[in-house]
Amino acid sequence: MSQREHAPQSVPVVAVVLAAGFGTRFDPDNPKQLVSVGGKPIVCWSIEAFDSNPRVSDVIVVVNPAVRDAVERLVDRAGYPKVRMIVDGGRERVDSTMAALDALAAAGIPADAKILIHDSVRPFVERESVDGCIDALDEFDAATVALASTDTILLTQDRDGREIVSRVPDRPHTFRAQTPQAFRFATIRRAYERAAVDPSFHPTDDTRVVVDYLPATPVAVVAGSESNLKITTLADMPLAERIAAARLGEPTAAATTAATAVPAVPSDMAKEEARARMHAMLAQAAAQLH
Amino acid sequence: MSQREHAPQSVPVVAVVLAAGFGTRFDPDNPKQLVSVGGKPIVCWSIEAFDSNPRVSDVIVVVNPAVRDAVERLVDRAGYPKVRMIVDGGRERVDSTMAALDALAAAGIPADAKILIHDSVRPFVERESVDGCIDALDEFDAATVALASTDTILLTQDRDGREIVSRVPDRPHTFRAQTPQAFRFATIRRAYERAAVDPSFHPTDDTRVVVDYLPATPVAVVAGSESNLKITTLADMPLAERIAAARLGEPTAAATTAATAVPAVPSDMAKEEARARMHAMLAQAAAQLH
Repeated sequence: MSQREHAPQSVPVVAVVLAAGFGTRFDPDNPKQLVSVGGKPIVCWSIEAFDSNPRVSDVIVVVNPAVRDAVERLVDRAGYPKVRMIVDGGRERVDSTMAALDALAAAGIPADAKILIHDSVRPFVERESVDGCIDALDEFDAATVALASTDTILLTQDRDGREIVSRVPDRPHTFRAQTPQAFRFATIRRAYERAAVDPSFHPTDDTRVVVDYLPATPVAVVAGSESNLKITTLADMPLAERIAAARLGEPTAAATTAATAVPAVPSDMAKEEARARMHAMLAQAAAQLH
Repeated sequence: MSQREHAPQSVPVVAVVLAAGFGTRFDPDNPKQLVSVGGKPIVCWSIEAFDSNPRVSDVIVVVNPAVRDAVERLVDRAGYPKVRMIVDGGRERVDSTMAALDALAAAGIPADAKILIHDSVRPFVERESVDGCIDALDEFDAATVALASTDTILLTQDRDGREIVSRVPDRPHTFRAQTPQAFRFATIRRAYERAAVDPSFHPTDDTRVVVDYLPATPVAVVAGSESNLKITTLADMPLAERIAAARLGEPTAAATTAATAVPAVPSDMAKEEARARMHAMLAQAAAQLH
């Protein structure tokens, strides 16, 4: 497996799991990061994606007052060995990112630490995407997981209350952003410092903070996957349940998300089979949405 | 129903159904527009979406040599009253659009005719979207069906073989293009004429031809729907089958996609008018050939 070929990591690799959203659209008593998929709370899937990755050294979880107790209990019970802090976030996503960066700064994290910022409501991020971010930061100071758009994207402007197409970018150069979004600590810190003094600052995406406020810093694209879906509404749950079932049922998937090693030769075959099965399940699940 | 409230249409409303693709990824012997969904070939769903719409006056279908016989047989058997021509397309999507525009010009179609260009592999376009295009052309010379993006979109540039994020547009101003894309005939014709003399011309989208070559012409966005999916691979089929089943099972949906939705007498009158118009168009076209 690829991590075996890497030299021991010289810098911390810190995952920031953002679980401070208030989304209660499909369960008023239960913000969606606490809803269970495949019998496990969504936030736990997300924490495990990083906690179980041998290349990740530390995990911090950002919460709000409504979920803090529940998340603390879940983390205690599971005993995730790499969860160092549970930090209070803010009202907006960017406030939560900033709270995490402040906490990391206060903890004395080095400027060249690799920071992976992840939405907790993307519970099924692939191991390859996380590793891809960590690798990309050897070459770039910023990177984001994203999926090539299969649709032509239209950029629009509002004109008298109606959207008018202003530009049609080349399709091969249009991507749907996913997470994690990954940065050297000094880079994301500097971008947020510059953004903070701009009164018109209102980004909804960490990559955008770098693109807008550190335009000379290239942000590399790391391959995402369809299964790295964002759970937003009830309509996303059947597909999420299918993916969870596939992950739980597959020895290979379990092995790649656990620290235990996978034997080289049969693992590749199993992986192919698993992928094929996953595709079939995704297709079936998509069908059930309607 | 809304069309009853409209004044009689003063200009032809012509749907161009593009069925000239060669996609055989999920059945080597059967291009995907001929594959059946809900027991009906995909191309028939698309033709019916327009043929059964009382506000559409004419339908032309663009084919390739591999599917011409099959499409002709399907059209003959179904007896779609508004299908006037089955035109040979070209290798690329734009070649097929141009072939259709040439055929319409040869038929003497007026400059202010409303042209709705539709991908045949989007079989489930909603009646509301088609009507929305027709209405939008009263205010604008171009319009396209599109769906607001729920993901943040990243625009990228290639740098040494790696995609680098160049811009993160505001999410409320990012849309996924669907079809139909709708234009006054003179507008789309002029855009293609200008594009044709540009050696770097290689668009994959009709809206883009207008945005790029007639930048002063605003293109309005018309609301699309998740069900207006593009069938691209086998993975799209289960969802497509679900939508087809829902449509077939719903009396309202069935009525709007069947000719029976139109009261007998007006329908016969409309048929007669359509035939007369076709004869006029063909006569004009024939005259121009001599």
